[in-house]
Amino acid sequence: MGIVSDLESILPGGVLSAREELIPYSRDASHYDGELPAAVVLPRTSGEVSAVLKYCSGKGIPVVARGGGTSLTGASIPVPGAVVMSLMRMDRVMSVSVEDRVAEVQAGVRIDALNRRLAGLGQMFPPDPGSSIAATVGGIINTNAGGLRCVRYGTTKDWILGVEAVLMDGTVLQFGNRTLKSRIGYDLTSLLVGSEGTLAVVTRAYVKIVSKPQAVARLLAYFSDIESLGRAVADVKAAGMEPLIAEYLDGMTMKAVESTGTYKFAVCAPYVLLLDLDGPEEALSRYVQEASSLLRRSGATEISSTTDRAELDTLYTARKGAYSSLLKLRRSERDVVLIGDIVVPPSTLPAVLRSINSIVESEGIRVALFGHIGDGNIHANIFFDQGDSSERARVEHFHSSIARVALEHGGSVSAEHGIGLEKMELLREEYRYRRSEKALELMKGIKSVFDPKGLLNPGKVLH
Amino acid sequence: MGIVSDLESILPGGVLSAREELIPYSRDASHYDGELPAAVVLPRTSGEVSAVLKYCSGKGIPVVARGGGTSLTGASIPVPGAVVMSLMRMDRVMSVSVEDRVAEVQAGVRIDALNRRLAGLGQMFPPDPGSSIAATVGGIINTNAGGLRCVRYGTTKDWILGVEAVLMDGTVLQFGNRTLKSRIGYDLTSLLVGSEGTLAVVTRAYVKIVSKPQAVARLLAYFSDIESLGRAVADVKAAGMEPLIAEYLDGMTMKAVESTGTYKFAVCAPYVLLLDLDGPEEALSRYVQEASSLLRRSGATEISSTTDRAELDTLYTARKGAYSSLLKLRRSERDVVLIGDIVVPPSTLPAVLRSINSIVESEGIRVALFGHIGDGNIHANIFFDQGDSSERARVEHFHSSIARVALEHGGSVSAEHGIGLEKMELLREEYRYRRSEKALELMKGIKSVFDPKGLLNPGKVLH
Repeated sequence: MGIVSDLESILPGGVLSAREELIPYSRDASHYDGELPAAVVLPRTSGEVSAVLKYCSGKGIPVVARGGGTSLTGASIPVPGAVVMSLMRMDRVMSVSVEDRVAEVQAGVRIDALNRRLAGLGQMFPPDPGSSIAATVGGIINTNAGGLRCVRYGTTKDWILGVEAVLMDGTVLQFGNRTLKSRIGYDLTSLLVGSEGTLAVVTRAYVKIVSKPQAVARLLAYFSDIESLGRAVADVKAAGMEPLIAEYLDGMTMKAVESTGTYKFAVCAPYVLLLDLDGPEEALSRYVQEASSLLRRSGATEISSTTDRAELDTLYTARKGAYSSLLKLRRSERDVVLIGDIVVPPSTLPAVLRSINSIVESEGIRVALFGHIGDGNIHANIFFDQGDSSERARVEHFHSSIARVALEHGGSVSAEHGIGLEKMELLREEYRYRRSEKALELMKGIKSVFDPKGLLNPGKVLH
Repeated sequence: MGIVSDLESILPGGVLSAREELIPYSRDASHYDGELPAAVVLPRTSGEVSAVLKYCSGKGIPVVARGGGTSLTGASIPVPGAVVMSLMRMDRVMSVSVEDRVAEVQAGVRIDALNRRLAGLGQMFPPDPGSSIAATVGGIINTNAGGLRCVRYGTTKDWILGVEAVLMDGTVLQFGNRTLKSRIGYDLTSLLVGSEGTLAVVTRAYVKIVSKPQAVARLLAYFSDIESLGRAVADVKAAGMEPLIAEYLDGMTMKAVESTGTYKFAVCAPYVLLLDLDGPEEALSRYVQEASSLLRRSGATEISSTTDRAELDTLYTARKGAYSSLLKLRRSERDVVLIGDIVVPPSTLPAVLRSINSIVESEGIRVALFGHIGDGNIHANIFFDQGDSSERARVEHFHSSIARVALEHGGSVSAEHGIGLEKMELLREEYRYRRSEKALELMKGIKSVFDPKGLLNPGKVLH
């Protein structure tokens, strides 16, 4: 009880220690079972974050910072004896300036909450992972999260101008700043983006915002074979179109989306491609016509389009919830879903999608596929029975087979979900494949510079 | 002669050592006088880069990598005894894929050359510093260069997906990769962006490309006072417009631009704001009308607009050459131009521009002002006689006064030109101001991880 009472004196009213309070913090959205943390702290200020880290550093206690707990790779799973630091009480949008295209937010601000605030000003923060209802700014900085809009706007790293972060020794620092440009030495802001809580605890961020798209039209193009869909995406990009989103869903994912009861696809086909185009009202119908004829030439069997706002929003939300919807298709309580996250150059999509399909068929895996196809990001959602060791082995083999397909086509094993616990081996494999293993040594060196005692989120990203 | 003959055996036909050959490599585009390097090497492959670095590492010889030599802060000035490594022979565009929105280029490819190649495909690489005719991909990665298009497209860091880089010990590594997303551990690619050759030598890059804007219209809005111009920029941004470029020039810069003989402003006014708007043909005239009435309300005394391609290109090029044009206004051979590079939040522009003007008046400085005003970046071009120590002191005082103004308005001392030799003190001041000096210690730690002997571009960025 020493740690808990010490923490309570540092953070009165901000410590959880009862078993039932700790349970939710032992897990995240991945399939990993974690251990109960020693305690959970809920700081309200960076000063409090600093005090807790300083205390833990002195005692040699590991600390796992946590946002919405939506990691799909186990990045938020605590090691035994760790203190979990939830940033959820630091949920203030401190300022928004449309003139400056900047919002200053605390780490615990949820992405949807930020975007609701911005929408009233005609602005948005583009990174929009599927979990945006719960995911926080601090969380998506730490995972460099992606989402539906990356094909137009890039990933989280492109939208973070600066952060306030606290080192394990308690030092509070500002990296980057509030301006749209700044060149102030090495880019430590970008180094924290994607570092999964292993370098410092992000407490605040200056994020870049942008005016919302003008009018939006959506095309739904249905395909009977996956190779044609892959070809269509490559054709769209080759034609120079810059869609707002470009998503695909396979039949099983379409069913899962429909099972939420909020949306029904007009056509029953094995695959659908969603393409959102935006622009001024004057040009939108021309864009739709041009894209329609291109998609038809690329092999779409049926095409529909809409500009109806309610319909646009409903399917967007349903697509964002595709993973959660798929979870409902599990056959039993023991079933879990492992979600792959490969990314390949879009020009290789026809070949890559064909390869994945033939691996699925030959290995007899239960899998639903969807993805941010416009940037070549494919999520394979693999269902398996945790208790069945032979199924587990088959799944792991499948998972690494498609990772191999990605590498062989110039792609990567990890696009936007991060490394966490799940992809540490694949990460090594990718660097081995590129003969760049020394990069992992450099990362370890950087880890030692920031966190010499190795107490921040130990056992993640790097061995 | 030991070093030279050793290098010649490593790189036959790729070593310069005659005094007159070395002179150009002792300087860059800044006002610093450098020393002659021990030798200049011109590798053609990353294998050759590796061999030279390995040799120099063994001998303890410092190496300064160099692209177009267009640094304005002395980043390419060699220390005594250094080997300068010019990447200019590694100038191949290895591949361009419109489908993948990626170009793979060697470090020595010039920005204009890349963009000429891309233009034929309807694509472009957005970073476009004023020096793009000579600046290279490797160079702008190392400075995280900006330019006219940042207001829409961000800085270089947002466009670099991956690099091949060679460590001082000769290890060739790939960081990041060819895909539009990838999350493969800490973001070492972004860490190299802006590191000014102090961490590794970048030999190749995967850069993101984007479809060229559709139709473009330019507004020229003239102002009689600087505060109104600053207000107009804030108003444009508050209205949610996302211009392609938003530049301003003061009277002296306008004269310098006109002195090139390529362009003449229609109106004689103390200040002009250039605003490029883009979109489909159908909407462009509406955009122009809306922007014109807004600028009129914000105090523009006169407004003209054009969609004439030749006129658009001429002024764009002339504006990019503004700094070079200003150099011609020097009163004597001893005159040099120091170019400041502050950046502030656009909402503070009226106050900041007013402050700068009053400092200029009170200190009696010869200065021309222009900048990428849409992202708050102001370049003060300060003329002074290098031989006149009292003028030099006044200039240095002015330089740090406007840096102070930037800091006090939430801005930064350095937007896009980098630190080099010139801004090392200002960099420290900025971190002191933000009580974040420990960040500099972290940078030094990172430097030691990458380059433990401290041989890569010594004496730059960090003390």
